[in-house]
Amino acid sequence: MPDVNRQIVLRQRPVGLLSKGDTEMVESPLPELAEGEALARNLCLGVEAAMRNWLVGSEGGYMEPVGIGDVVKGSSVGEIVESRCDAYEVGDIVTSLGGWQDYAVCRDDFFTTKVAKGVDPRRYLSLYSATGLTAVLGMEIGAPEEGDTVVVSAAAGATGSIAGQVARIMGAGRVVGIAGTEEKCQVAVEEFGFDSCINYKAGDLKAQLKEHCPRRVDVYFDNVGGETLDVVLGGIAQGARVVLCGAIASYLTGKLPGPANYTNLMSREATMAGFVTFNHWDRFDEVFATLRSWADEGRIHVRENVFEGLERGPDALNALFTGANIGKTMITP
Amino acid sequence: MPDVNRQIVLRQRPVGLLSKGDTEMVESPLPELAEGEALARNLCLGVEAAMRNWLVGSEGGYMEPVGIGDVVKGSSVGEIVESRCDAYEVGDIVTSLGGWQDYAVCRDDFFTTKVAKGVDPRRYLSLYSATGLTAVLGMEIGAPEEGDTVVVSAAAGATGSIAGQVARIMGAGRVVGIAGTEEKCQVAVEEFGFDSCINYKAGDLKAQLKEHCPRRVDVYFDNVGGETLDVVLGGIAQGARVVLCGAIASYLTGKLPGPANYTNLMSREATMAGFVTFNHWDRFDEVFATLRSWADEGRIHVRENVFEGLERGPDALNALFTGANIGKTMITP
Repeated sequence: MPDVNRQIVLRQRPVGLLSKGDTEMVESPLPELAEGEALARNLCLGVEAAMRNWLVGSEGGYMEPVGIGDVVKGSSVGEIVESRCDAYEVGDIVTSLGGWQDYAVCRDDFFTTKVAKGVDPRRYLSLYSATGLTAVLGMEIGAPEEGDTVVVSAAAGATGSIAGQVARIMGAGRVVGIAGTEEKCQVAVEEFGFDSCINYKAGDLKAQLKEHCPRRVDVYFDNVGGETLDVVLGGIAQGARVVLCGAIASYLTGKLPGPANYTNLMSREATMAGFVTFNHWDRFDEVFATLRSWADEGRIHVRENVFEGLERGPDALNALFTGANIGKTMITP
Repeated sequence: MPDVNRQIVLRQRPVGLLSKGDTEMVESPLPELAEGEALARNLCLGVEAAMRNWLVGSEGGYMEPVGIGDVVKGSSVGEIVESRCDAYEVGDIVTSLGGWQDYAVCRDDFFTTKVAKGVDPRRYLSLYSATGLTAVLGMEIGAPEEGDTVVVSAAAGATGSIAGQVARIMGAGRVVGIAGTEEKCQVAVEEFGFDSCINYKAGDLKAQLKEHCPRRVDVYFDNVGGETLDVVLGGIAQGARVVLCGAIASYLTGKLPGPANYTNLMSREATMAGFVTFNHWDRFDEVFATLRSWADEGRIHVRENVFEGLERGPDALNALFTGANIGKTMITP
């Protein structure tokens, strides 16, 4: 075991994309474990849009913001290499909030879950961890019925790509994606099984939505917020369910116009509801098993967008906001 | 029976408040009944904010807009004075969409309901017809639990005043109103039993809401939309239910800023849902009976704001938008 722990720490709160002085890579001594702690060697680090919020500390957020000087917080998959905790043995695989560092201290706490071995470490992040759980929880709220039209934004992204496939498995009649490049739309259809995918940058979204969803939208799984949410609310069907999963359109600026078409929730007797995956962590094992069986049956496909090298963390996070990302973005330290 | 039927017809689509040339009172011959029709003499005519929308014809609305030259559409309570319809006998009392006229033709259709006799005609409109049904349906969606904090906007208005009392009956712990004058706030507390009522014009709504709802808002029954909805979304509790009943803030302008704080639906795992009372008309008799028993037990109080004379219709409708109205506004022709 090396005797240094490389860490990426926050130096100042970012404005817009992460830039050079916002984070710094430092070398710290390996932590000494106290009773009840274990040490995980991080195998893969998740890169999620919500992390950008944790760096600035949004008001009323569900997660403590990252302090100045602290390690950038994010999901991780690690292997236990030393343990003074009854919950973990050396060799166990855990998902945790290990953050951007080589080694992370784990406890038997809310954010750390021991997972089945024998899975490609990257697959935990791309399918079995918070990402897949988020897609399933959200689509359970959307509850597509036989024949329903389901729309998913950020359809080529980590959560959206799975959400669309879950909708299909749940019986949706038509699954339509929204994404921002032709390549993303192609991948959504060819790899993730969407019936069609709208490139919102290629033309008027309202007109395209009408064309792709001639019977209106029964379920909308929203990852982006902003203008897209407003346009889709304009096209919802009677009794529609709008699931709020994220609002990536606002994460860089902290500003988000409210959706004026929310009034359609009235005239079309629709529901808009949000959820926080971390509040349903008790579902983890069950959903893990479900996703694994679907994957084994070839019913769920994922893509991994791997950045090799801890130092590439900031680039990887920025890639979520520049339209460059397809599938689950992660770092292998 | 007189041989003329006074009617208020639409001459042009209003912009802002109703003004002189928008409507005109005309005298028409009494209609001749065809087979399957009955004639009701209107006893009271409801004046509701939604009627303003029907005069301009909002896109995607649930109700056909009033045509130019047509009688202004609105709820009514009438007595059958002549019948060629099996469903109604002379002397029956019906609620209908009789509109602003002395006599209306009724059919055995969706919008016409025969109601129990023996109630003050005005009381049908103020409590037992669409107004009370709306309050009950909406509060069923809000579903306050024991001890919950419930907030109702337009708390001194027809629907809001009943919604607050229904919340109390359903077990809410704290019922807080929002209204626009000191008088309205006083009436909400003293007559309608709200625990407190915020005058949103008397100071910063956000600060007042925090003070009146120290444990945040579990249920919000929204009649107004706009800025008020946004501020209350800023103060919702974990798992809150926001019930969208109306958006009176937009009815004159047709414009409504979307609520940027909708993102709290995510972080607080809350739900926002709308409904259309007319879609649940099958609940009419049951809810009528419930409301009547509550009123008989002295648990529901209403106020009626009666404009005498058909010609005062436009003034009565405008009163809903100028802040002058307390309780149920109606016209006795």
